[in-house]
Amino acid sequence: MSKRTKIKALLESTQTDIQVTVMGWVRTFRNNQFIALNDGSTNNNIQIVVDFENTDEALLKRITTGASLKVVGQLVASLGKGQKVEIKATEVEILGDSDPEKYPLQPKKHSLEFLREIAHLRFRTNTFGAIFRVRNSLAFAVHKFLQEKGFVYLHTPVITASDAEGAGEAFKVTNFDIANPPRTESGEIDYKQDFFGKATNLTVSGQLEGELGAMALSDIYTFGPTFRAENSNTTRHLAEFWMIEPEMAFYDLEDNMDLAEGLLKYVISYALENNREDLEFLSQRLQEEEKSKPQNERSEMSLLDKLQFCLDNSFERLTYTEAIDILKESTPNKKKKFQYLIEGWGADLQSEHERYLVEKHFKKPVILTDYPKEIKAFYMRQNDDGKTVRAMDILFPGIGEIVGGSQREERLEKLEQRMAEMGIPAEELWWYLDTRRFGSCPHAGFGLGFERLVLFVTGMGNIRDVIPFPRFPKNAEF
Amino acid sequence: MSKRTKIKALLESTQTDIQVTVMGWVRTFRNNQFIALNDGSTNNNIQIVVDFENTDEALLKRITTGASLKVVGQLVASLGKGQKVEIKATEVEILGDSDPEKYPLQPKKHSLEFLREIAHLRFRTNTFGAIFRVRNSLAFAVHKFLQEKGFVYLHTPVITASDAEGAGEAFKVTNFDIANPPRTESGEIDYKQDFFGKATNLTVSGQLEGELGAMALSDIYTFGPTFRAENSNTTRHLAEFWMIEPEMAFYDLEDNMDLAEGLLKYVISYALENNREDLEFLSQRLQEEEKSKPQNERSEMSLLDKLQFCLDNSFERLTYTEAIDILKESTPNKKKKFQYLIEGWGADLQSEHERYLVEKHFKKPVILTDYPKEIKAFYMRQNDDGKTVRAMDILFPGIGEIVGGSQREERLEKLEQRMAEMGIPAEELWWYLDTRRFGSCPHAGFGLGFERLVLFVTGMGNIRDVIPFPRFPKNAEF
Repeated sequence: MSKRTKIKALLESTQTDIQVTVMGWVRTFRNNQFIALNDGSTNNNIQIVVDFENTDEALLKRITTGASLKVVGQLVASLGKGQKVEIKATEVEILGDSDPEKYPLQPKKHSLEFLREIAHLRFRTNTFGAIFRVRNSLAFAVHKFLQEKGFVYLHTPVITASDAEGAGEAFKVTNFDIANPPRTESGEIDYKQDFFGKATNLTVSGQLEGELGAMALSDIYTFGPTFRAENSNTTRHLAEFWMIEPEMAFYDLEDNMDLAEGLLKYVISYALENNREDLEFLSQRLQEEEKSKPQNERSEMSLLDKLQFCLDNSFERLTYTEAIDILKESTPNKKKKFQYLIEGWGADLQSEHERYLVEKHFKKPVILTDYPKEIKAFYMRQNDDGKTVRAMDILFPGIGEIVGGSQREERLEKLEQRMAEMGIPAEELWWYLDTRRFGSCPHAGFGLGFERLVLFVTGMGNIRDVIPFPRFPKNAEF
Repeated sequence: MSKRTKIKALLESTQTDIQVTVMGWVRTFRNNQFIALNDGSTNNNIQIVVDFENTDEALLKRITTGASLKVVGQLVASLGKGQKVEIKATEVEILGDSDPEKYPLQPKKHSLEFLREIAHLRFRTNTFGAIFRVRNSLAFAVHKFLQEKGFVYLHTPVITASDAEGAGEAFKVTNFDIANPPRTESGEIDYKQDFFGKATNLTVSGQLEGELGAMALSDIYTFGPTFRAENSNTTRHLAEFWMIEPEMAFYDLEDNMDLAEGLLKYVISYALENNREDLEFLSQRLQEEEKSKPQNERSEMSLLDKLQFCLDNSFERLTYTEAIDILKESTPNKKKKFQYLIEGWGADLQSEHERYLVEKHFKKPVILTDYPKEIKAFYMRQNDDGKTVRAMDILFPGIGEIVGGSQREERLEKLEQRMAEMGIPAEELWWYLDTRRFGSCPHAGFGLGFERLVLFVTGMGNIRDVIPFPRFPKNAEF
């Protein structure tokens, strides 16, 4: 069957007056004559002109929105506007019917909420076709960028017995009959009898295992699913999401920031180059959507301009301490417009503060470094001031934190001391500490939330719309 | 710190007599003078020549196997054998010590079993460095091949409520306190109160969701982790493994076989091209290992020859029925050497039969098609004979099944009928059936077990050695 040509290739064809075979799904059928056919290879449809006078009426009736067709015909220059070529059909075959009375996707505007309920069909809309082609390009661009730098893609485990980081937020994995798990004599669950011989959960991050790889292969990255059993019903959180986590030996925080900024710029420019039409469509969509908002809530830039702006400007780099000074003196803080007022050093930054820095003060992506150690993880390298750690967060307009990373604490004593202070059991992480015992070295890494990146690049507002089948509280459909 | 040059680049350098900075881990230190340094960028070490007469003795003592160093020096042509260049050190800095009394990896041969216990350090050996660089190349080559054909990489969900396929073999995922889960009035577990509002498990395959994508985007693939709670302690099974699952609209079984064969050949040739030294090392390793085996159990071909042979020959394609005829008439069957004798049509093929076909009869990869419907899944397209389905399995020497796929049943009635026969609840798969209700079309797909591929290409014997941190019964360490 594979002798068909994809619509993307046909629309880019410089040859005309050749016979072609095309297959796809009907988007619209006008005047018993013009079929708009789409096969998912591009956002654009190809127009098929049917010789309706010489076509069986029963067949014409079956050309309905959603039906799947095989069309053989001549590729000819088009006289219609908006397209260079069209197909003069000589043969139309219905591969699969679509009852117009029952097909949920009619050629009209559907709400994103409605489309979420039929996520199995929303790939067939312009919006979601574009989103998932862009998502694909971003994923491949991540690999391409890191491969060209000699990074090794490492598959860290999804099922893990280490819960050092995610206390309480990790999903449990078990092979027990939950109604009747085996118990020890003292009545506790007998995890020795579970599949892995101990309690296990879904990973919240591949970082610790990633570091093990970096301490031998120099530069590695993970790109896999991570999980949070957090009961947050927001537009920014998912229970299952994909993360990219590069870990690099012989890197300090400067190197780490350079790599992260380079990676983000590369993948955005890759999408702009390879998905121009999809992004133009999504840019348009966003503009339409914003028309219903009051003027002062609309974006200052179009989606395409915003992406280009990211490429053309260096991310602003400053320390947490500098950021606190700016926030303390800011108008919303002085006028008490922030929900959480910044009163002094040490406060954890809320989304409203991050947005102020990125969207109002600097008006570009920002990298904040050197956070108070109290609000950061145990593995971050301690600064000499005794107060801060070599953390970095990259904040993006409209998204907030898109990257979180740090230089890692490579000094065994410092690391053990911090773990003790924070109550993290060293015996469970013996393997992690071993890398500091044997040939330790300065190293760094970060985590990039893939769905947040897709959210930013597609201009969508809800993270549930940028992953095929979102997982969130009370929802695991499909 | 990133001003270092990677050892791979130095060894390939055409320039000499330049100052370079290199960082890595000591593999060996001979005669107080020659350091073999490795940074994971290549299987090869660079030789560092230390001016021991002018170097502090305390420093020399700290240059031990496993220590991490920064070396500045001159890259010069080498007089030693086996290397074109070496570094005359002008500055040696210890970044991290490695106590030779405690470091588990000494410069001697360690067993694979021992290295499995210290999987966090085994990346630092020649064998595992090579394996994980090859694994990396294979993963990237999968993406590259499919991207160049316009496939969309789709992330299908890991947590799923659908257990249509994996009845009983899926791990349960829950947010309950397993010691005390909420119960309904009648005493059953009240899954409505669980995180997702129903019972959920880890996916055994992304295929069904993948098909949803293909029925809009034409060509998609997944590449993600899949899980089996099967209590099998073998060298071929893991509880957590990675699968590549392409699904293509408008494909029949021929197209499907062509794609799978093309993909396998492409990724093997990509590894041969990009990981020549790693594969030469692994080929040598295998030959060494086989010296302890009796002559008639040793491979007829070296690893490199076997890989090349795969590229140069078409895979043998035949039906299950033809295979049964061959097996029935085979010497081991007639002499009753098979553990499971082939007495007639309908039997499920065992590993011994697959190996006979691949290794003895055809002596090359084999694609078997059109299996009895009783031994295959509900979604495979039914042939007109009423007995067989359009399945295909690709069998590889030494590995057995590496790919399993089929043309999918696109006819709603046939699919519903088969599901009813097999007791698969249609109401749970309403979304899957919808794709047959609205614009169905011929389509096909397959699953490629990624670790089996890595096993084949690296020539390793145990699947636990080709994934960084293997998950199997009673083991979830690291």
